Amino acid sequence: MIDAITLGNIQRSYDERIKTFVHRTPVLRCLSMDIAASRCCKKRKHDDTNDHGVYGAGNDIPVVSLFLKAEHLQKIGAFKIRGAMNAVGLSTANVITTHSSGNHAQAVAMACQLLKKRAIIVMPEGSPASKVNAVRDTYQAEVRFCTPNQAAREAACEAVMEECRRNGIDAELVHPYDDVRVSCGQGTVALELLEQVEGEQLDAVVISVGGGGLLAGCSTVIKRLSPTTLVIAAEPAQANDCFRSFYREDGTLRPKAERIRALNATPPKTIADSLKTNLGLNTAPVIFNLVDDVFQVSEDQIRAGMRITLERAKQVIEPGAAVAVAVATMPELYSKYPSIRRVGVVLCGGNLDLETIPTLI
Amino acid sequence: MIDAITLGNIQRSYDERIKTFVHRTPVLRCLSMDIAASRCCKKRKHDDTNDHGVYGAGNDIPVVSLFLKAEHLQKIGAFKIRGAMNAVGLSTANVITTHSSGNHAQAVAMACQLLKKRAIIVMPEGSPASKVNAVRDTYQAEVRFCTPNQAAREAACEAVMEECRRNGIDAELVHPYDDVRVSCGQGTVALELLEQVEGEQLDAVVISVGGGGLLAGCSTVIKRLSPTTLVIAAEPAQANDCFRSFYREDGTLRPKAERIRALNATPPKTIADSLKTNLGLNTAPVIFNLVDDVFQVSEDQIRAGMRITLERAKQVIEPGAAVAVAVATMPELYSKYPSIRRVGVVLCGGNLDLETIPTLI
Repeated sequence: MIDAITLGNIQRSYDERIKTFVHRTPVLRCLSMDIAASRCCKKRKHDDTNDHGVYGAGNDIPVVSLFLKAEHLQKIGAFKIRGAMNAVGLSTANVITTHSSGNHAQAVAMACQLLKKRAIIVMPEGSPASKVNAVRDTYQAEVRFCTPNQAAREAACEAVMEECRRNGIDAELVHPYDDVRVSCGQGTVALELLEQVEGEQLDAVVISVGGGGLLAGCSTVIKRLSPTTLVIAAEPAQANDCFRSFYREDGTLRPKAERIRALNATPPKTIADSLKTNLGLNTAPVIFNLVDDVFQVSEDQIRAGMRITLERAKQVIEPGAAVAVAVATMPELYSKYPSIRRVGVVLCGGNLDLETIPTLI
Repeated sequence: MIDAITLGNIQRSYDERIKTFVHRTPVLRCLSMDIAASRCCKKRKHDDTNDHGVYGAGNDIPVVSLFLKAEHLQKIGAFKIRGAMNAVGLSTANVITTHSSGNHAQAVAMACQLLKKRAIIVMPEGSPASKVNAVRDTYQAEVRFCTPNQAAREAACEAVMEECRRNGIDAELVHPYDDVRVSCGQGTVALELLEQVEGEQLDAVVISVGGGGLLAGCSTVIKRLSPTTLVIAAEPAQANDCFRSFYREDGTLRPKAERIRALNATPPKTIADSLKTNLGLNTAPVIFNLVDDVFQVSEDQIRAGMRITLERAKQVIEPGAAVAVAVATMPELYSKYPSIRRVGVVLCGGNLDLETIPTLI
């Protein structure tokens, strides 16, 4: 029984329901990205007495090391399989339903296929054919279409459950992020990352935030196992409900106890599709308590994050992952926290239509 | 002194001039690509007595394993740095020159920067600004432009060397592929690959062929260290001088002794830029003697190789590398050699203009 996002629950989820089914994704390094991050750092006096400029000119050795946790190489191409395996594995229902046009749809469908449950996935009309086909053909889930808005999605899931109940079948919703079982699954990304950097301390870990499932799970792990590591949330400025939850309108940071759950009143316009959602009721309190800071980035900064990752690291990531890259390579991060040098960056997913790449870089 | 492409020379090159400067690139796996290759295999009787179809339908476990040697993650984004480090490291000249619009230009420029020699790189007019800038700004080499054809390139290198001689400076050409020092460097890709698959036998290794430097070096290593492993050359049908060197017009394979050096009479039209060259005088005899077979692929097959690698393996490769992926996932390979199951695939490079991706998939 998983009723809260705790380190113990995350570790048990990993051992009992996740690790045998998912990839232990590698932690990648990229010299060009280290150089880009190092250029954000001011030289300190003892580094070079003749030159108090920034790093990265000429033959400077990079001072920042980025550790890229490659969840874009995860099964279904994103971390979402972790939470889905956990929630579906814990569920006693015969039918699992959810609403998603993206990675969570594939994750629940695959988890149900592996655990031999029936999946009914509500997808908004107009979802890309490639995603509908993956859910239906690759993972053999049933797809129901709905009008593309939040209310219609939820109503469609309700209808699925009602229909199952009428037929005497036990059905359950696995929410994309606002479900503690899901958050506990996503937190296993941080469990692996901290092990993989071989006990050497990370100064910070940068994690993209949409609904906050990944961020809540990972911050729980990091603050227990490595309390001095900063947990930095990365968010598109165009969908900045988490940022506004942390910061007052005058730009000052709210103390933990005063943080409030801001909402994106209108549908956000950002290329980072997967980060358009608001923090959930279960994820927000954990995030308010454990996350050290939130940085927001412009669409151009997201594009630059996409470009450097594709061009230099040769990795195909989705814009939601590029948001974390953008924060990890922005001067503001290193001027506000001048001592950070070893930075974990979660590349949360790699699913995108390849044809759209020129519009994303 | 390196005067021939031999295993001993390749091993010495690795130990003395290469391994401290280059990445030991990882060997990647991708389940979706294994499935695609497995679908090329006919089921054998003992595999499933009820079904003599092909693999890959439903829940078949993939029977083919592809081991992707990730030279697109190498320094400068391609294997070329290996041969350049070796040739520049062996040279006693103060100035190194070469002609290239592509990966070899960056490789020689970087090798000279590391070994503190002066590099003068001849690049054809109209070379992409990104490549010219990398050579000039990142690796601090001198760039001379020439008319974009083979004769003008060679003449420009001659002029560089003549100019140096007049000034009493020792200068040397490092040819992109037709130089045994370069081939010995490129062969270190296979040294690493064979070590990395942990002594377990590969049934075949698929290697793209342009000028043949990589293929000559790797086939020398593979046939000495793992003689029963098939060495398969992969070539665009639009630039198939190697294929025509191995095959008569009636489609029959020439015996080793009868192989002849065919040439691309007109400039080849293929998206695989890096494979447009003809086999060199030094590489051809080695390739004729050691390579087991050559497969040619259409432009559409190259595009499909690009797409599966970007979409499923999430790796950015260049079309020249996709040619090897295309051969490793084509039914003809597995029908001609029905027993191959463990296949090495060299992803030779990952440098491309991201804007062109939609035209390459």
